[in-house]
Amino acid sequence: MTEINLDNLDDFIRGTAVLGTGGGGDPYIGSLMLRQELEKCGSIQLINPKDAPDDMLAVSVACMGAPTVFVEKIPNTKTAIEGMRRSEKEIGRKFNAVIPLEAGGLNATLPLAVAARLGLPVVDGDGMGRAFPEFQMTTFNFSGVRCAPFVMSDDFGNTVVIDTDDASRAESYGRPVCVKMGGIAQIASYAMTGEEIRRCTVPRTVTLALEIGRTLREARIKGEQNTAEALISYFKISKPPRFSRTLFDGKVEDVLRESSDGWVRGQVNLVNDAGNVMDIPFQNEYSRASFDGKTVAINPDLIMILDRETGEAITTETLRYGQRVRVLGVAAVPIMRTSEALKVIGPRAFGMDEDFCPIENIAWNGID
Amino acid sequence: MTEINLDNLDDFIRGTAVLGTGGGGDPYIGSLMLRQELEKCGSIQLINPKDAPDDMLAVSVACMGAPTVFVEKIPNTKTAIEGMRRSEKEIGRKFNAVIPLEAGGLNATLPLAVAARLGLPVVDGDGMGRAFPEFQMTTFNFSGVRCAPFVMSDDFGNTVVIDTDDASRAESYGRPVCVKMGGIAQIASYAMTGEEIRRCTVPRTVTLALEIGRTLREARIKGEQNTAEALISYFKISKPPRFSRTLFDGKVEDVLRESSDGWVRGQVNLVNDAGNVMDIPFQNEYSRASFDGKTVAINPDLIMILDRETGEAITTETLRYGQRVRVLGVAAVPIMRTSEALKVIGPRAFGMDEDFCPIENIAWNGID
Repeated sequence: MTEINLDNLDDFIRGTAVLGTGGGGDPYIGSLMLRQELEKCGSIQLINPKDAPDDMLAVSVACMGAPTVFVEKIPNTKTAIEGMRRSEKEIGRKFNAVIPLEAGGLNATLPLAVAARLGLPVVDGDGMGRAFPEFQMTTFNFSGVRCAPFVMSDDFGNTVVIDTDDASRAESYGRPVCVKMGGIAQIASYAMTGEEIRRCTVPRTVTLALEIGRTLREARIKGEQNTAEALISYFKISKPPRFSRTLFDGKVEDVLRESSDGWVRGQVNLVNDAGNVMDIPFQNEYSRASFDGKTVAINPDLIMILDRETGEAITTETLRYGQRVRVLGVAAVPIMRTSEALKVIGPRAFGMDEDFCPIENIAWNGID
Repeated sequence: MTEINLDNLDDFIRGTAVLGTGGGGDPYIGSLMLRQELEKCGSIQLINPKDAPDDMLAVSVACMGAPTVFVEKIPNTKTAIEGMRRSEKEIGRKFNAVIPLEAGGLNATLPLAVAARLGLPVVDGDGMGRAFPEFQMTTFNFSGVRCAPFVMSDDFGNTVVIDTDDASRAESYGRPVCVKMGGIAQIASYAMTGEEIRRCTVPRTVTLALEIGRTLREARIKGEQNTAEALISYFKISKPPRFSRTLFDGKVEDVLRESSDGWVRGQVNLVNDAGNVMDIPFQNEYSRASFDGKTVAINPDLIMILDRETGEAITTETLRYGQRVRVLGVAAVPIMRTSEALKVIGPRAFGMDEDFCPIENIAWNGID
């Protein structure tokens, strides 16, 4: 697969919602944005990161803010492009490609909409291999790509340029500006050369989203009862193969959700017929799954909550009482599990007082 | 008087503290900063705004934040110059003068320290004619000078550039960044041409600070008991003459003070021997003086709290129980009282539900 077009758009969007691991906002909005662009341009070219030429200069475009806001104040391709132009002015060079910051949610879609509008190719990879809530939480950052110029733009033509070597500081200075911009800002950051793209990217995650979406669609067409099982079978043969496991099958018993400081934070509690409980705290994305009080999956591994019938991903802002769901845990790829990576995207970076344990090493006496 | 030098430095600093109208931080810090520079360069040249040549390009340098923070995390000339250089890069021209944003407090001193370091002249005027807590509250803004590029710099070499036509928005985006920078940021903003300097400045406020400081010193040398009276006599003959009045003579009974959101806010309550009370709320600076519940002076007119013995200004962060004080009210100059001005620096801009009434028109049955 080397392009995104109207034929595979729905699969792609379905897959980005799953890779959103709870975050990234309503996929329907991303779908509308991208469909509008594809109807004009036909298709978007994907470039395998290992084939990125030396003279490539790519930029990450993304939304910053709480997904609860994105559904009311919709991201804007035009504003994103203004930020990108401001970054070009800062750097003194034009971008000739776009690279997604995240593999999940709206931030997996927005870069493609921008690329389509500008006729640029998109790198088939990203900096998170999923979605994360903060801007320093990227392979780009802990592999040594400079985040600055970190350009924020709002829908009124105003821009804020943060110049720093420290991505955590960019996040810290940018987040309250995003709140003042109305809870959402468009960001252009992590300008990357071809060499950096080859070295610092989680590869093939646009394709991964496509394949996840296709797997779910085909499972539904075949009438499979357990779409989560279909995904587990797919992850066994994905490139690279990834360990995955059903962590829970039950219903939503309680949701605590608060939009504050530029994020949506809270916790969802699930219960099954046998009376077991699963608690999943979130900061935009699901951070940890505990089965009867014991951690069974934790950041940076991926936690997905899927509708039990359709297999569609349920994002943090659409969680509600009584939903029947399956929870899936998926191993993060090796570049996201190095000691350097865990300092930035491991449990302690999310304020959780425990070390990372790979999902495949966690003793399992659950319900799968 | 056409220069600031080591001989008149103490008078100048004393005057800026008075014009700080409660805000602007401990004048001692500004005094140390400026003394250090003057010991190297000898003197700083002042330029009357009406003599600003067309080819002049001046920049305002200032600190943003709560004065309670300034006394612990001291403003830094080097950081201010870095911000100024970043602004020059943005504009594509070098600055050949510095213009104070405020006439009072540290922000009246910092621009002179920067100018001394760089060998640049300083415009004898400013954008507030006193101190105000927010960055849109300047004659520059409501006379049509663009605030952007609004450059913020911290002590670690990081910069944030806000590009907007709306000074209130620059304030709104910049304030939380200032908090994240540690409660203080150095700002370079309101780049102004000679034409704009001639048209949009409160003139001769560096000289005004000097003359206020000299008046207080001379009154003390002469052994005058009431230094506030000496100031009132001076304001009758200042250029231009300004109405002024003693509003209260009493002691501090209570202080409520909170540093939050990048400001220091609160209220001081005074009481006199006859049992009258005066309440003065503040947001960095004193906003209103009420005598037994009746407003007797209000923004943008100037309210000063002076030590009863020495006549030295008392800033909001040094207010404490039991201080014996005199409160002075001084009329703002006409450029600060136009209808355009009052929208930005009148009572309602500070959340007070009353209209501006010039201090000289307020019926007076007080204690002077």
